Amino acid sequence: MPGISRRKLFGLGAAGVAAAGAGTLAVRSLPDEAATATPSGSASDPVPFYGEHQAGIVTPAQDRLHFVAFDVTTKDRAELVDLLQEWTAAAARMTQGHDAGTFGAVGGVPEAPPDDTGEALGLPASGLTLTIGFGPSLFDGRFGLADRKPAALAELPKFPGEALLPEISGGDLCVQACAHDPQVAVHAIRNLARIGFGKVSVRYSQLGFGRTSSTSRAQATPRNLMGFKDGTANLKLEDTGMLRDHLWVAEEDGASWMTGGSYLVTRKIRMHIETWDRTSLTEQEAIFGRSKGEGAALGMAKEFDEPDFARKGPDGQPLIAAVAHVKLAHPSSHGGARLLRRGYNFVDGSDGLGRLDAGLFFIAYQRDPHRQFVPVQLALARQDVLNEYIKHVSSGLFAIPPGVRDAGDYWGRTLFS
Amino acid sequence: MPGISRRKLFGLGAAGVAAAGAGTLAVRSLPDEAATATPSGSASDPVPFYGEHQAGIVTPAQDRLHFVAFDVTTKDRAELVDLLQEWTAAAARMTQGHDAGTFGAVGGVPEAPPDDTGEALGLPASGLTLTIGFGPSLFDGRFGLADRKPAALAELPKFPGEALLPEISGGDLCVQACAHDPQVAVHAIRNLARIGFGKVSVRYSQLGFGRTSSTSRAQATPRNLMGFKDGTANLKLEDTGMLRDHLWVAEEDGASWMTGGSYLVTRKIRMHIETWDRTSLTEQEAIFGRSKGEGAALGMAKEFDEPDFARKGPDGQPLIAAVAHVKLAHPSSHGGARLLRRGYNFVDGSDGLGRLDAGLFFIAYQRDPHRQFVPVQLALARQDVLNEYIKHVSSGLFAIPPGVRDAGDYWGRTLFS
Repeated sequence: MPGISRRKLFGLGAAGVAAAGAGTLAVRSLPDEAATATPSGSASDPVPFYGEHQAGIVTPAQDRLHFVAFDVTTKDRAELVDLLQEWTAAAARMTQGHDAGTFGAVGGVPEAPPDDTGEALGLPASGLTLTIGFGPSLFDGRFGLADRKPAALAELPKFPGEALLPEISGGDLCVQACAHDPQVAVHAIRNLARIGFGKVSVRYSQLGFGRTSSTSRAQATPRNLMGFKDGTANLKLEDTGMLRDHLWVAEEDGASWMTGGSYLVTRKIRMHIETWDRTSLTEQEAIFGRSKGEGAALGMAKEFDEPDFARKGPDGQPLIAAVAHVKLAHPSSHGGARLLRRGYNFVDGSDGLGRLDAGLFFIAYQRDPHRQFVPVQLALARQDVLNEYIKHVSSGLFAIPPGVRDAGDYWGRTLFS
Repeated sequence: MPGISRRKLFGLGAAGVAAAGAGTLAVRSLPDEAATATPSGSASDPVPFYGEHQAGIVTPAQDRLHFVAFDVTTKDRAELVDLLQEWTAAAARMTQGHDAGTFGAVGGVPEAPPDDTGEALGLPASGLTLTIGFGPSLFDGRFGLADRKPAALAELPKFPGEALLPEISGGDLCVQACAHDPQVAVHAIRNLARIGFGKVSVRYSQLGFGRTSSTSRAQATPRNLMGFKDGTANLKLEDTGMLRDHLWVAEEDGASWMTGGSYLVTRKIRMHIETWDRTSLTEQEAIFGRSKGEGAALGMAKEFDEPDFARKGPDGQPLIAAVAHVKLAHPSSHGGARLLRRGYNFVDGSDGLGRLDAGLFFIAYQRDPHRQFVPVQLALARQDVLNEYIKHVSSGLFAIPPGVRDAGDYWGRTLFS
């Protein structure tokens, strides 16, 4: 049973019927051809894998996340490079709706384990993107990379109030899988872990069920688990000039292997939602500086109306407090510093104390975290009244290398070659 | 800001546009009117709340799950009945795409906490069903229910090999939330927990991201995380006669308050997927007794071809081993006993040992668990080769009362009145 295509069984699923028209062309083509197909905008369709930048950054945020951090267990640089090449080939296939490898054994030997685990058979590409990152610990000398570590990858400072758990922080490598179908995202991470057996080990993994940011003007701003729209001023794929200034690493930034790449900061933010739910609407809106229903800055009518931080209420006080979240996080408070956020809501069951273990898995891309995330987060950690209701429990920092150009290229080539 | 309807902001979301036609009528109507709307089949649409049976059992299995078990903390029967009435009213609203209560404070008093947490504002009903169950421990005497406990609710026996964790097993009450949008399912459970504050406490909660069963012939059989189709012989809503015999409790079954109800068994089954992924395709298929690609019983061509357990291979041995999963679980091995399964895949991150914490949250409804689930599970626990790759870590048993008839009725009325 060599090489059953996931698409071959595609007609079975209800979702498949709707997408079959647009998707069919991509199915039968090889990965390097599929990438040139024009995305039709259906949630079932593939997102091109090859390009100047990795997909999954400005790609309109998909609905679901499976994020994983790996420890590299091999000590052998060549073995790590081999793995990155194998992963790249599998990612090129899976993002286009194909299996990770041949589904039956190679050459039809059924005595070998399958090169794909099978749970995504029959499912379409579902907008899957796979985005790899390299953590600071990868540059510790094990792989001869110490002198290639970018200054921007210096560890984040300790922030006031954070309570980071080391076992769900850091990581030598990370992969962000985003898709419109969680089974497709889970399948992709699971197959990368399978391919990496004996060379890498899963350090932690996080599912997210609802995107909390828009990365395109075509998307509505979603809500976090506090019930608010957040990130209205997010960087979006249409902001070409701002992406150049705030998102993509440029040649002049010093680590030339990172040109066309970006830096990723992740923070797992637990919310004390039961406490929040017993807070009055007035207080909730004052803390965010926004109305809950429309999402408009206080004193404004619409979500995208620019906040007026000078406007005062009848009591002579600013309508938006100096410590309101919208004020502290606003680019105007940080010399125009912006982030591209694409975080996800999570619920990890309950915590044994009668409360849901829920919150936000914050994900932000930027050109230099020490000039963008760090000053914003320092201001929030020091002053944001929201801190009464949240706790940062994990943190990750990763260099996101540039995109894979074609089938002869691989994740991290500019770093390792 | 009194009573913002979730539907009022409905036009903002991309998903909303497609469903707006079918959904609009239900939006502005009261919950008791909305329930009579004909489901149009769109994943955004509401499922009727009122009826002879609770929704969420034969309802075509939605894509996502949030399951919660509660401990009742109040000792006061009247307070428990009040809570069930409040929950019923909130469930009737939420399943029809409305808020749990008024979004602003009642009567427009912004100094009170909102009666809805807000994160589902703007999202459609998304096929949400909420199904309540009563565990054996609810009948322990605290609430004067000891003499109303049905024989079918006797605790399950201990099964060979199970490794149950008490903190994620049992529960006085459970609510199964199923929906096509996980944010809608999470919102519903969170608001029930909010309403129950001081009377109930969350014992455990489980998210499921992909349905593993079909409960209608119109649905394709999905795949579990072992990559196989399972539950091909599942009870389905079209099997009216079998549902009467195998699913719904009848007057003659002894506990008349349960007439029209059913019994729910939940099992959290952790899969050792890394071990499974290193097993050959031949062995995987022999263990299930099915082909992995098509899902046909061994020796058959198609998924729904009836297995022929007598058929032998060239070596004179049965093609389907006596201990294959399809044989052990088949109704013909248990005097025709059938279950209505509607379980979900889960991934709860990783386990600290480099492995994904993943598996199946098994959910099965039936008329009498001691004649249906128990004999099937005993056979599986004793003989199934699959046991090498799985571990049962939690168990739940719940009496599922009949449906709520109308706005004057409530969850559990037949038990408490």
